Amino acid sequence: MTDMAELPDEPTGWLSDRELEHVRSELPLVYVNVVPVRINPMGEVTEVGLLLRAFDGGISRAIVAGRVLYHERIRDAIVRNMEKDLGLAAMPQVPMSPTPLAVAEYFPTKGVTPFHDSRQHAVALVYVVAVEGHCEPQQGALDLTWLTPEEAASDEIASEMAGGQHVLLRQALAHCGALT
Amino acid sequence: MTDMAELPDEPTGWLSDRELEHVRSELPLVYVNVVPVRINPMGEVTEVGLLLRAFDGGISRAIVAGRVLYHERIRDAIVRNMEKDLGLAAMPQVPMSPTPLAVAEYFPTKGVTPFHDSRQHAVALVYVVAVEGHCEPQQGALDLTWLTPEEAASDEIASEMAGGQHVLLRQALAHCGALT
Amino acid sequence: MTDMAELPDEPTGWLSDRELEHVRSELPLVYVNVVPVRINPMGEVTEVGLLLRAFDGGISRAIVAGRVLYHERIRDAIVRNMEKDLGLAAMPQVPMSPTPLAVAEYFPTKGVTPFHDSRQHAVALVYVVAVEGHCEPQQGALDLTWLTPEEAASDEIASEMAGGQHVLLRQALAHCGALT
Amino acid sequence: MTDMAELPDEPTGWLSDRELEHVRSELPLVYVNVVPVRINPMGEVTEVGLLLRAFDGGISRAIVAGRVLYHERIRDAIVRNMEKDLGLAAMPQVPMSPTPLAVAEYFPTKGVTPFHDSRQHAVALVYVVAVEGHCEPQQGALDLTWLTPEEAASDEIASEMAGGQHVLLRQALAHCGALT
Repeated sequence: MTDMAELPDEPTGWLSDRELEHVRSELPLVYVNVVPVRINPMGEVTEVGLLLRAFDGGISRAIVAGRVLYHERIRDAIVRNMEKDLGLAAMPQVPMSPTPLAVAEYFPTKGVTPFHDSRQHAVALVYVVAVEGHCEPQQGALDLTWLTPEEAASDEIASEMAGGQHVLLRQALAHCGALT
Repeated sequence: MTDMAELPDEPTGWLSDRELEHVRSELPLVYVNVVPVRINPMGEVTEVGLLLRAFDGGISRAIVAGRVLYHERIRDAIVRNMEKDLGLAAMPQVPMSPTPLAVAEYFPTKGVTPFHDSRQHAVALVYVVAVEGHCEPQQGALDLTWLTPEEAASDEIASEMAGGQHVLLRQALAHCGALT
Repeated sequence: MTDMAELPDEPTGWLSDRELEHVRSELPLVYVNVVPVRINPMGEVTEVGLLLRAFDGGISRAIVAGRVLYHERIRDAIVRNMEKDLGLAAMPQVPMSPTPLAVAEYFPTKGVTPFHDSRQHAVALVYVVAVEGHCEPQQGALDLTWLTPEEAASDEIASEMAGGQHVLLRQALAHCGALT
Repeated sequence: MTDMAELPDEPTGWLSDRELEHVRSELPLVYVNVVPVRINPMGEVTEVGLLLRAFDGGISRAIVAGRVLYHERIRDAIVRNMEKDLGLAAMPQVPMSPTPLAVAEYFPTKGVTPFHDSRQHAVALVYVVAVEGHCEPQQGALDLTWLTPEEAASDEIASEMAGGQHVLLRQALAHCGALT
């Protein structure tokens, strides 16, 4: 229940599943983590989208996450992973800069950093990305919920997130001036 | 020719011109500096907009700049100053975060920092903002030119900018991965 | 009790108190907000310093805050304000970059942004700065307390801070990977 | 001559050389890129350290670069790679935050991004790190030169750097307010 949610459904890049499994225990993988939001014309965050995912016996809320593939730019990985999780009609406003608002180091061992992923060591570049289109949860997600920034930052929602992603969510909201 | 270009035409906030003149020599003023760009659907910068301005006997290229007024949020100041310089149809995509990509400290004395403004000490928060609409130079600007990122970063253009703004322009382009 | 704590004891720059009072109601002022921390040799935050301040009848915890004066660089303002609040032996490691981790917009009206200062509109550039020397609370502060990052991020401490500074404190800790 | 310089001498992590060779053509690798600097007590950059490296028939200047290994934190990777390139007495001041000032996407194909590495796709997190101790070039470097920020940003030095690292160098200097 503490894995970054996207992995079972993700394309394996150019490695076979077996090779990827091996590499996961040998190298840190590059990820993007994206907090999808809706904004008003003044750029203010009005809603935050959280996915609902099932894991071995549990359920948790998650932000959009996925690997950066070989020969894929970060901006392309952001779009691909958002479309994978939110559908082809999501219409994300791709960030102009590849510089993330934060870097989350997911470790397979708990307590090394605030972030944990039992299957791997992942270095995730974190972004907030506005969507303009229609979003719906794709395969691998049970639901997609839009929350106000206040709701998204609540302790209740934090308790429903895994791997430390509630820290990223709050950091992203603070970055946007939407955390009170 | 080394002043931040927007000042003669700017609203004086809630201070009289005379009071503002006095304050300029007593307090640092808060500014926004905005590099207006056009982007493609992948968020890549395709064009950079530079204003052409006349100063006491000279001409220079400039980015959008202007004060943050009393009780005005940074996002509102960005929109107001972009509309002041580029017109009401510019349709800027307001940034989600007030955190700037850089802070430029303009000093009335040359050489203290890379940035100089003979009239005042200004602390400018620097942003890159995409425009989606039609832009045209407003009162106080002679022209508005759209350049490729390569052209905008050239030594020729740098030599036509004042106050150190060529440094900000290149930093903004590097931030967007558009500086080669 | 919701004012940025440093103001009563702050130098007035080159304006008289009366002039400054007037300007405060006419222009946004430039501030630095600094979260003072102790770090270990690996750069990890081990302790966070919070000041205890008295206000009209109340007490609250606060980070280091103060104005940027006319013709003062941000790095000089950081050092001066840290020495003002923590003493001359604090030995702050001045940041290499003037780019802040966040910008806090303090408004005299509540609810415009997460940050509030009843006396003025202040645009505060936010930094985390490590201190290597001995710190003690200066005039205007009742105490200086060093907390673990966990304690500093707790709801209890948040309830003892004013003006929205608990948001900045948590954002600063998240920025350093010290928020769990 | 356009490869990120550190690779021949780098530890292979927990993969065999042969496996790493294979993975390099299948997955993006996580790197740190560090601009080593000397600073004065006010945090201003006074000198920039550049390595001189030999490649198949050529010589180029380079910043510190190296992989992040499996189960290695970014801050540990920064220290390890700085010690690898500058020696054990370099005494780097490890950054408090893992958030980089920029992300450089090195592609094996030229022209996709400003950054190129013929052997691999590397996603490099870019930092400026001050060194307080004695630095000397280690195995794999011919020399270590300390330049003023002005010299480091010159077109002459840019022409001696490979893979687009001159862009990072200038971006890092601009970030520190040391680019004029």
